Amino acid sequence: MKYAFAKRVRHLQSSAVRDILKVVNQGDVISFAGGLPDDELFPVEAIEEAFTRVFAKGKKAMQYGETEGYRPLREMILERMARKQITDYTADHVLLTTGSQQAIDLFSRVMISPGDVILTEEPTYLAALQVFQSYEATIVPVRCDTDGMVVEDLVAKLKAFRPKVIYVVPTFSNPAGRVWSLERRKELVRLVHKHKVLLFEDDPYGDIQFTDEGYTPIAALDDGSHVVYTSTFSKTAVPALRTGWIVGPHQVIRMMSQAKQANDLHSNSLAQQALYELCLHFDLDAHIQKISSLYGHRKKVMVDCLHEAELDDVHFVDPKGGMFLWVELAPNLDTQALLSEAVARGVAYVPGAPFYAGSPQYNTLRLNYTHSTDEKIVEGMKLLTGLFSDSGEATITER
Amino acid sequence: MKYAFAKRVRHLQSSAVRDILKVVNQGDVISFAGGLPDDELFPVEAIEEAFTRVFAKGKKAMQYGETEGYRPLREMILERMARKQITDYTADHVLLTTGSQQAIDLFSRVMISPGDVILTEEPTYLAALQVFQSYEATIVPVRCDTDGMVVEDLVAKLKAFRPKVIYVVPTFSNPAGRVWSLERRKELVRLVHKHKVLLFEDDPYGDIQFTDEGYTPIAALDDGSHVVYTSTFSKTAVPALRTGWIVGPHQVIRMMSQAKQANDLHSNSLAQQALYELCLHFDLDAHIQKISSLYGHRKKVMVDCLHEAELDDVHFVDPKGGMFLWVELAPNLDTQALLSEAVARGVAYVPGAPFYAGSPQYNTLRLNYTHSTDEKIVEGMKLLTGLFSDSGEATITER
Repeated sequence: MKYAFAKRVRHLQSSAVRDILKVVNQGDVISFAGGLPDDELFPVEAIEEAFTRVFAKGKKAMQYGETEGYRPLREMILERMARKQITDYTADHVLLTTGSQQAIDLFSRVMISPGDVILTEEPTYLAALQVFQSYEATIVPVRCDTDGMVVEDLVAKLKAFRPKVIYVVPTFSNPAGRVWSLERRKELVRLVHKHKVLLFEDDPYGDIQFTDEGYTPIAALDDGSHVVYTSTFSKTAVPALRTGWIVGPHQVIRMMSQAKQANDLHSNSLAQQALYELCLHFDLDAHIQKISSLYGHRKKVMVDCLHEAELDDVHFVDPKGGMFLWVELAPNLDTQALLSEAVARGVAYVPGAPFYAGSPQYNTLRLNYTHSTDEKIVEGMKLLTGLFSDSGEATITER
Repeated sequence: MKYAFAKRVRHLQSSAVRDILKVVNQGDVISFAGGLPDDELFPVEAIEEAFTRVFAKGKKAMQYGETEGYRPLREMILERMARKQITDYTADHVLLTTGSQQAIDLFSRVMISPGDVILTEEPTYLAALQVFQSYEATIVPVRCDTDGMVVEDLVAKLKAFRPKVIYVVPTFSNPAGRVWSLERRKELVRLVHKHKVLLFEDDPYGDIQFTDEGYTPIAALDDGSHVVYTSTFSKTAVPALRTGWIVGPHQVIRMMSQAKQANDLHSNSLAQQALYELCLHFDLDAHIQKISSLYGHRKKVMVDCLHEAELDDVHFVDPKGGMFLWVELAPNLDTQALLSEAVARGVAYVPGAPFYAGSPQYNTLRLNYTHSTDEKIVEGMKLLTGLFSDSGEATITER
């Protein structure tokens, strides 16, 4: 039988994320491709204790739960966000989701009609692009520099395209490792108010900081009307609990909650209850510091390797947090074309092209430093910089 | 700010499920409204043991997992389905979901373009109707009798509407408690092959049987090409684990898996691993017998109450399994209009109208017997039959 799929998913036929995961799962390859936290740091004992506390609460804990999620955890998340100056909300403005991926998806489901315009950074999180495409949005990338979106280009595109949504990952972005300056954040809030656009702030990495600078979430600069903000416990506790959250204007969150009823009724409530107990009895902030310190060290090892290789024409911004190093090679190198040779030599990365909504820069790549030991980073970077150095003569493949 | 929601969710403004849950949560009311299993039966100790086994496996168990779900659980599900003669599949044909609700949603997401026709039973599961509406399907109900869809009407609608999908809950349906006869099941498979239509078999209740008759899932009568089949551990183990599954043609499952990447990357993998350990070390089948026996007893208590009340003009089919009793009152009674009086008297039910895709029968209601003790069932049914008896003179409200 021929299965006639819906138009909205026909673009899904080839999934970049899926290809990446396949590379990651290959045995002997040193992988800088994924976005995995280091499992050696997972606080397994504390999580097991948290579950024991949940089970001790009895059978009611295992019944169907509220679509919005376990209320005590929502309240605890509010307290944690208040420390970042995100304060305009109550528990009724918070929806717990299956990772922050589901927050991006449900938001798009309730807001995006086919043809609606979404402005994004360039490059940006590729799984967000896939969500937007699946709701048949028109994605318009905005030019970026190291401080965030370039205001001139943003204003021009606000006027030209009348977008419904702006999607940004302003703190240690995936893939670019970029941090928006405070000025740009303020300017963005001013502009979304002026142009009556909703801003989606995706912040899965904001807690993973390598310096003492501190960054104000854009949601903290809004009055609760124009910004939705999402984050997750996947990077700070463990991914397998699949618990993220989204906070925003009540009408938007309520509609997302109704869409979530259709999507899956509610997320795993045992995990939500366990996370609540974890936050109560385990020093998650000290744990986050420990993670950040190790990841910062690994980042330095990787950056040092790049410096030592003394490659011609290689550019990157040293990340101040997050999980990724974004590298721009000489313009004549094509990282997609080079990937199979890299894997043959024993190292994997993600080519930059899929992160572009507009015209890709084929000479870019994303490296993850959180899931490899120092030794593996040194070994893998030697293979990788060796490949780039050998490929100096390569030219861009015709497409 | 005015939030302009997407067209696909504008119908969500009033959610029947949500209204139901609000009634359920009211303190002193005896509720026959929800669809909750009895938490007294939850095998908490066995589930805690299962989690302990998962934690003992170490840190890798807490990392990101496969989108398709934990493979050993998928293989175990195949074994369990094989005992119901569903045998045409491998683990690559199984996708684990956040409850079977997500299976309905992801299937619709990949198959339904706006305007595509879905044939359903009448009445049918209201949260499925909400999903289909959210993908802007045209829902066409097929006339049903106690054996399933009426073949003559089904054939006429296959020809007239050229549907893409037929959605059925053939074994102890929600809300009607209906069981399809084997002949109708076979005829349906013949017809979907003839008309090249995909059949979605939703089977959350099939394991909850009150007799020894046994029913062949429709998926067991297909060759693996035209039927997708979904079920869940929510009714047999516990709802909070939020683990369902769907099996079907590989192309369809693969596309759903790609859509699931955009939706939430993957469902809670700790829960999936715990369910695997539970099935391995706990006699889930004996547990299901225990549940079925108690629910069958409660069903009998409720049915006996209805008989004893000797109401004029009340019709119902005594369910042979599942969680619901579907009742048709005298034609002049409107169960939506009566609900507030029922709740005032201390008992709740679900009016039948929201379960209809076409013209509702306002004199119908759905009663759940799994979540109340014998005593509460007797007390609640006294209140309810008293109300119906008192309301003999009520007339249908004009709409």
